[in-house]
Amino acid sequence: MQQQPESVLTFSRATLHDFLDGLSSAAPTPGGGAAAALVGAMSAALISMVCNLTIGRPRYSAVESAMKAILAHSERARTRLLQLADEDALAYSGVTAAYKLPQGSTEERSQRAVAIQQALERAAEPPLAVLSESRSLLPLCLEVAAHGNVNVVSDAGVAAELCVAAVRSSLLNVRVNLTEAKSEAFVARCEMAMRDAENGLDAELDRVIAIVRAKTAPKERR
Amino acid sequence: MQQQPESVLTFSRATLHDFLDGLSSAAPTPGGGAAAALVGAMSAALISMVCNLTIGRPRYSAVESAMKAILAHSERARTRLLQLADEDALAYSGVTAAYKLPQGSTEERSQRAVAIQQALERAAEPPLAVLSESRSLLPLCLEVAAHGNVNVVSDAGVAAELCVAAVRSSLLNVRVNLTEAKSEAFVARCEMAMRDAENGLDAELDRVIAIVRAKTAPKERR
Repeated sequence: MQQQPESVLTFSRATLHDFLDGLSSAAPTPGGGAAAALVGAMSAALISMVCNLTIGRPRYSAVESAMKAILAHSERARTRLLQLADEDALAYSGVTAAYKLPQGSTEERSQRAVAIQQALERAAEPPLAVLSESRSLLPLCLEVAAHGNVNVVSDAGVAAELCVAAVRSSLLNVRVNLTEAKSEAFVARCEMAMRDAENGLDAELDRVIAIVRAKTAPKERR
Repeated sequence: MQQQPESVLTFSRATLHDFLDGLSSAAPTPGGGAAAALVGAMSAALISMVCNLTIGRPRYSAVESAMKAILAHSERARTRLLQLADEDALAYSGVTAAYKLPQGSTEERSQRAVAIQQALERAAEPPLAVLSESRSLLPLCLEVAAHGNVNVVSDAGVAAELCVAAVRSSLLNVRVNLTEAKSEAFVARCEMAMRDAENGLDAELDRVIAIVRAKTAPKERR
């Protein structure tokens, strides 16, 4: 593997232990944004796992091509979400840097205000992307829970819980970037993305969990 | 760091990239159990982060000792949950091994049936522990959201979303172990643990999120 410059964050190469250490420390990154992205990536990985345990099994040949299409989507999302953990941390650093700009003269204060607004808008992009990538996974969870290998249906359920947690976390992460935002167009765009992501979220999750529960009902014991 | 025998799983030393690769593969472990444990550990780490950014700040001196107590709990839980990711994978391997036991003679079939029941009961222990460890984090999220450093209140909200996802995932992971269980005492114990964990879960999460939303309300723009 090629060595990358130190300035480029690559959480993907951190160990779980070190990532958790970084998350728990007083350092500003990684924080809730990177955590949401990683949880979304874990959801995508579990969807891929169910697909990989379904594809090639004679019993599931009827859904073979559907599972291959789902796998392509979940693998692409997994890669993107892991990248977004890095991008979130980088964008957050931009906000911190903007707040540290000098504010001695009127001109400096004006330049700092512009830089803060630009940094806030840039910082909202990774959580917005985590929001939409994670939201796109929930319909896949429904498909793999309904039609994938029944032996791993609980993993499809866990995938659904995790992508919904990533969505709901991203709603908080986008919202915190709007607190100080001044551009109405930017705020309106974020609010529309948040409404779209929330639309039907709980109902879709309930549907997945109902399928998982039905397929893992206890066998008659008495 | 000492080299451990290969048979001992140590996800904590895996990179995020490799852990996600393992999760997505057709290999039975890691799966939804390890994922739930890791998401619980991420919740604990974010609670620790908020504590670490609150302790020692004059503005928050009134809650200093409370935050130190929360930090001790969250750090202990983080360590335990990361261990449980390994224990879950190990316990699952025991179930797979029991199902592969010979079933040629009546005696072999009887021994295999006993081994399967024992392995299923052992396999339920890690998800039961993830369930209770993760559930214990939600009241801490409420405390750090209400009284911790307001600049990272959204991280307290993400911590709440993640521990609830870990709890809900563990409910599915425990349940799947009960499908084939024959001991009524074992099933009753699991069902009581599941009811305890679910009790008040949604209402507590809603309280945390309401606090986070109130503290991240947009400033007047017009």
